[in-house]
Amino acid sequence: MTPDLSSFLARLDQEIRARADWGKVADYIPELARIDPAQFGIAVCLADGSLHQAGDAQKRFSIQSISKVFSLACVLGRIGEQIWTRVGREPSGSRFDSILLLEQEKGRPRNPFINAGAIVTTDELLTGRSPRDALSEIIAFLSAAAGDSDIHIDKHVAASEAATGFRNIALANYLKSFGNLKHPVDHVLGTYFHQCAIEMTCVQLARVGRCIAGLPGAPQMMTPAKARRLNALMMSCGHYDASGDFAFHVGLPGKSGVGGGILLIAPGRASIAIWSPGLNGYGNSQMGSHAAERLAQHMEWSVFG
Amino acid sequence: MTPDLSSFLARLDQEIRARADWGKVADYIPELARIDPAQFGIAVCLADGSLHQAGDAQKRFSIQSISKVFSLACVLGRIGEQIWTRVGREPSGSRFDSILLLEQEKGRPRNPFINAGAIVTTDELLTGRSPRDALSEIIAFLSAAAGDSDIHIDKHVAASEAATGFRNIALANYLKSFGNLKHPVDHVLGTYFHQCAIEMTCVQLARVGRCIAGLPGAPQMMTPAKARRLNALMMSCGHYDASGDFAFHVGLPGKSGVGGGILLIAPGRASIAIWSPGLNGYGNSQMGSHAAERLAQHMEWSVFG
Amino acid sequence: MTPDLSSFLARLDQEIRARADWGKVADYIPELARIDPAQFGIAVCLADGSLHQAGDAQKRFSIQSISKVFSLACVLGRIGEQIWTRVGREPSGSRFDSILLLEQEKGRPRNPFINAGAIVTTDELLTGRSPRDALSEIIAFLSAAAGDSDIHIDKHVAASEAATGFRNIALANYLKSFGNLKHPVDHVLGTYFHQCAIEMTCVQLARVGRCIAGLPGAPQMMTPAKARRLNALMMSCGHYDASGDFAFHVGLPGKSGVGGGILLIAPGRASIAIWSPGLNGYGNSQMGSHAAERLAQHMEWSVFG
Amino acid sequence: MTPDLSSFLARLDQEIRARADWGKVADYIPELARIDPAQFGIAVCLADGSLHQAGDAQKRFSIQSISKVFSLACVLGRIGEQIWTRVGREPSGSRFDSILLLEQEKGRPRNPFINAGAIVTTDELLTGRSPRDALSEIIAFLSAAAGDSDIHIDKHVAASEAATGFRNIALANYLKSFGNLKHPVDHVLGTYFHQCAIEMTCVQLARVGRCIAGLPGAPQMMTPAKARRLNALMMSCGHYDASGDFAFHVGLPGKSGVGGGILLIAPGRASIAIWSPGLNGYGNSQMGSHAAERLAQHMEWSVFG
Repeated sequence: MTPDLSSFLARLDQEIRARADWGKVADYIPELARIDPAQFGIAVCLADGSLHQAGDAQKRFSIQSISKVFSLACVLGRIGEQIWTRVGREPSGSRFDSILLLEQEKGRPRNPFINAGAIVTTDELLTGRSPRDALSEIIAFLSAAAGDSDIHIDKHVAASEAATGFRNIALANYLKSFGNLKHPVDHVLGTYFHQCAIEMTCVQLARVGRCIAGLPGAPQMMTPAKARRLNALMMSCGHYDASGDFAFHVGLPGKSGVGGGILLIAPGRASIAIWSPGLNGYGNSQMGSHAAERLAQHMEWSVFG
Repeated sequence: MTPDLSSFLARLDQEIRARADWGKVADYIPELARIDPAQFGIAVCLADGSLHQAGDAQKRFSIQSISKVFSLACVLGRIGEQIWTRVGREPSGSRFDSILLLEQEKGRPRNPFINAGAIVTTDELLTGRSPRDALSEIIAFLSAAAGDSDIHIDKHVAASEAATGFRNIALANYLKSFGNLKHPVDHVLGTYFHQCAIEMTCVQLARVGRCIAGLPGAPQMMTPAKARRLNALMMSCGHYDASGDFAFHVGLPGKSGVGGGILLIAPGRASIAIWSPGLNGYGNSQMGSHAAERLAQHMEWSVFG
Repeated sequence: MTPDLSSFLARLDQEIRARADWGKVADYIPELARIDPAQFGIAVCLADGSLHQAGDAQKRFSIQSISKVFSLACVLGRIGEQIWTRVGREPSGSRFDSILLLEQEKGRPRNPFINAGAIVTTDELLTGRSPRDALSEIIAFLSAAAGDSDIHIDKHVAASEAATGFRNIALANYLKSFGNLKHPVDHVLGTYFHQCAIEMTCVQLARVGRCIAGLPGAPQMMTPAKARRLNALMMSCGHYDASGDFAFHVGLPGKSGVGGGILLIAPGRASIAIWSPGLNGYGNSQMGSHAAERLAQHMEWSVFG
Repeated sequence: MTPDLSSFLARLDQEIRARADWGKVADYIPELARIDPAQFGIAVCLADGSLHQAGDAQKRFSIQSISKVFSLACVLGRIGEQIWTRVGREPSGSRFDSILLLEQEKGRPRNPFINAGAIVTTDELLTGRSPRDALSEIIAFLSAAAGDSDIHIDKHVAASEAATGFRNIALANYLKSFGNLKHPVDHVLGTYFHQCAIEMTCVQLARVGRCIAGLPGAPQMMTPAKARRLNALMMSCGHYDASGDFAFHVGLPGKSGVGGGILLIAPGRASIAIWSPGLNGYGNSQMGSHAAERLAQHMEWSVFG
């Protein structure tokens, strides 16, 4: 299967560049708005230990919301299931930055993968440590999981979002008004914006994903039960208000970010990272979503049979 | 594994009867309100063709919303993906009978497994045929899939719901006001209430589920691609506003009904039917949900690794 | 002032016909959709007992939602303030036929002048009497108040709405599901559709309004306290989601109907009826709203100084 | 009428102190939470130029949201009707600090008397001037209208709200995210919190109200048309989600604040200021609402006849 996969990825890369239907880069973070949408990279780690890649798989991109998976992994590692008293596990049926449900549910976000929920997770991560140390913990987690210490935060992106992220500032203050934020709003948001600004390549991200996919030989970063639960959450809530559609078309747990990245997990079989910075109307990578569907079908990796 | 499963089911049955924490039967359908909640049955079909059961696995119960999976299967078989112009594929983030989102989304239900969506599916099923013929088609589908023609509609339950189902009448008229109901409201609701009133045993339901699980030897009722999509929808939307929690705790696609039944699919491995009429606060079988989690863990059947 | 008013109304009639900016007739009730929008009538009763009119002031039109004021007046006359246990007194901030707030507020409509609230009022009116008798009571109230027994129901309009009023059928069933409808849905809606289909002329309607305006010589149909409360409700909730705008621009309590009628009250000073069947985007008569603002300004009748 | 009013106010003061049903002081602003709820003051200016008062009418209190009327008056004086492109004129059907409708209406607040709308008004007031100058303009307006320059801002209250007003910070950032805030969030909120922290006595407030009531001899602070519009807005939106109830029971335009103050206008007849710091469930002064109803009935001041 291995040679087949590499050549499939190469063909997929060509096919996508030929389509040239790239979508639009996120424009609400100025630093991201300048990126050329006509890029595509993909990397796949298989259970046999092999790594396959195509296109811009070694180019760094801003992982943005994909970081929500890792901050949650760190929090679950530290306080475990207690986090669920502060955030739910249900899909939201709304946009990633909706404040509406937060009012109806009195400050308890629907899940940790919408912005409000991720801000609560980051707040929890700050318990007993400084923003700097919390960020170090996430970076250390990623470096250990990827077996690669060359993972950094792009401070320009973090500053760009801090200067313009009014909706996230609104969400954090709103959470605070309900008593569901323990630390000062500035500390939490500072940490959150920096965590979103982590830069990784597809190769690095796919290597981190091995731990969630439970691939043989992956560093032991979490118990199988914990990995299973991350996968369940990614399936239910990983793509905002297109999560149901993603489950329907791709059939694998995944998490997208507005930087154009997608992390996909085929439990026990593969970890996949895709990047293409142009987005579709739901805020998910347009060519990344397409590539995810093509790959899952070709490899028959759907968890649904 | 087979002997182990049978003895596990027997122990699970005993454990649940000892707990005696049955929940409350649905009280909004008078005919269902009279059922003794202290009942539990489970049946499992494995890929090796074996059938395992425990408790009240051969007692008939009202499948209610589980029928939504089968009416959708029939519609997909007939018109295919066209149905998605009339109904979405996203979790709703609300109760099964919410009318709120329907207003916000101008009459297009979020998914086919909430009431509004299932009413649209049933309306589609009525295209070119009478209510009687549409119901016959569902019954024929179930009989063929189960290899058992002893499957019937409980007319008392259907009449009971028709007399008191004001919220469903409201939903249907509301859909009609948006032009998303092609047939007379009475025809659609009559068909819908009868389809919900189909009675099956756990054994029959598990045997039907083999086709969606894609088990060897199951009757060929749908393509693998169609089964995969039904599974994806059940994972995202099968348990109303507890779908995320179900994915998190059980990790298998499933569909519950207010009659206390749950259909669970372990793709390629097993089809499971559970029944216990007492419900939890989300309208899902209380002991059925518990049994589903225990079974999935014991057998390590989660699709998430 | 009297001669001035008559000539002002004549000028206003000419001005409006010259503008020819009529709006669109309601199209969701087939029988109303056929009416020529290029019509305008106005009638004013003053405290000195004089009646002034212009244009199509003696042409019959369907009073539609204006009837909500009269059914409420009848209910207040019978059971008094008890009605407020079943319906609120607050503006809704939504369309006249919204079902959304009804879900959030568990079946208690925001006020008696949105459809859901008026359906509850009509249900209350049916207590202890048949639909026929309830309708007779409203007609008798109007005839006595107008001093004119030539007021009737247009059965074609009632039938037209019964055949197509799916949203009202949805609202009524939804209320029933919350236990906030005491009589069979069919009885309540039948009464409601017939009450909406009452036909009156501007002259008749203005004469009825004298009782709410508390004009000297008007028939004693209600206490001053009751009239005051009807006026308060019309000010807060009389024009659906344009009630605030109407208060801002016109400054008088009023109630509009999708038939194009507007009843306006200048307490102690005048009762005004305006009709022009073309509607604006909020479902209020376009030229009627314009005429209301012009008249209130010219006569300096605003209750706000 | 004058002697009668003074003795009525004295009796009302006694009656209210005897009831001792004070409600609860606002607890979300720490500085206000310490105030003794058992206080009551009332002052009335009549058209004949007389002033009547009772109880704690000369005690200073925090006018809080009543300031929204005055910042709007200043803005209308400066840019006129243009403000309505940024904020609506409709009642909201929700709590004063709701963020929900703001999402549904894409950042355009429903009216200038809910917090979001008042923040927009304050932002408009900052056009071309510093926060200090904007506050000076409001104070100058109040001093001129009251004929009393002893009106100040309580900086402790402003600081208290700045430190804990997370929901208002959320609203301001949310408005900013929709582009409906022209100045830096900190400037706008700083100004807003200071404007809310203006301290006045009932006597001062009633004297300011003369200008809105259009009483003879009042300083000419605005045209009659402008006063009329302020009154219309206070009637529709002055008491948050109890505005309809207030119109129903009191029948006068008014504006309440969480400091326990109420400004009431009887156009052409009287200006009334009431203060009692204990609030009811809607955030309006409990004894203040009661006194308003008693006074309006006794004097037959309802604008509704």
